[in-house]
Amino acid sequence: MHTPRVYLAGPEVFLADAVALGEAKKALCARHGFTGCFPLDNDLDLGALAPQDAGLAISRANEALMRRCDLIIANITPFRGPGMDPGTAFEIGFMRALGRPLFCYTASDLLHAERAARWAGAAARVRPGVGVEDVDGLLIENFGMVENLMVDGAVLDSGGCIMVPDSAEPQPDYHDLSGFEACLEAAAARLLQRTS
Amino acid sequence: MHTPRVYLAGPEVFLADAVALGEAKKALCARHGFTGCFPLDNDLDLGALAPQDAGLAISRANEALMRRCDLIIANITPFRGPGMDPGTAFEIGFMRALGRPLFCYTASDLLHAERAARWAGAAARVRPGVGVEDVDGLLIENFGMVENLMVDGAVLDSGGCIMVPDSAEPQPDYHDLSGFEACLEAAAARLLQRTS
Repeated sequence: MHTPRVYLAGPEVFLADAVALGEAKKALCARHGFTGCFPLDNDLDLGALAPQDAGLAISRANEALMRRCDLIIANITPFRGPGMDPGTAFEIGFMRALGRPLFCYTASDLLHAERAARWAGAAARVRPGVGVEDVDGLLIENFGMVENLMVDGAVLDSGGCIMVPDSAEPQPDYHDLSGFEACLEAAAARLLQRTS
Repeated sequence: MHTPRVYLAGPEVFLADAVALGEAKKALCARHGFTGCFPLDNDLDLGALAPQDAGLAISRANEALMRRCDLIIANITPFRGPGMDPGTAFEIGFMRALGRPLFCYTASDLLHAERAARWAGAAARVRPGVGVEDVDGLLIENFGMVENLMVDGAVLDSGGCIMVPDSAEPQPDYHDLSGFEACLEAAAARLLQRTS
């Protein structure tokens, strides 16, 4: 039987030990009956390319890898502010349009509205009858969701889920794989045939 | 002939005058030979729904609207930090997977790496032989791109473009439609039959 291929999305590709973390994720995938596909596995020879051409080559390789994957498990931990990494959000949207199941996890224990309100701080102001807006006059979306409603909505409608810790430190821990493993367990329960 | 339908993406849906801004965008679309489709046009009766159900209904309506659109013009102006709105990034990825042309604009005149470096500030540190990383140990991607390479790469490979102003104020102006109109002109040149 075909072992489902998991696209391993998240900003940990930017960590110094990204390759080791990718290997750890792939080992967990194998233990749960999946094949993990990590963006940095793309065997690209970027040495001779100008920066923009290198970026384009990585983008193309990642898109091709996503098309070959059966599902995505994405790290939506806040990234340089209250929201998730836009590159990962792009990938979740990409896999959603392809009809693939989406599973997400985060190292933050706060909902989107709470993170945005903390970011807005004292500059937050009430929009009468509607809610709270930030210093730029942008309403803080408040639907009880973990991220922007496009992300949460797509995940739920795909049959996936978002794993949120019960508690967390303010500084996000990009190395903690407990949420990732919880996604694998949920994905296995949903997608893999049980023979026992 | 079918008038191409443009999905109007961006965080300005969160502005207090979002509906008026959407109408202004739709008027510009019509002037350039397109039909603009604004997320807030979805005729949803959310009054009786719990917050999460309302969010899900909006997500479903937006996904359905995207599938009916022929291209996307997305506002990728920085949103609550150095990066773009994750909801808009999701939508760009969604339309990319469907093979639709992508056009983007931003109110920032800085590339991704410069914005992230300013955000990192004094906490930025050198990763020897590689580049600069932020306080979380995440490398600042530096491919000479406007946003995360998945966004820039998809836009360029789709035949679209990203419109960047020559100069800008530090505080982003979500109401300026000059970049949006430049996208319309580029999209018209690429997608519309010229009879004159």
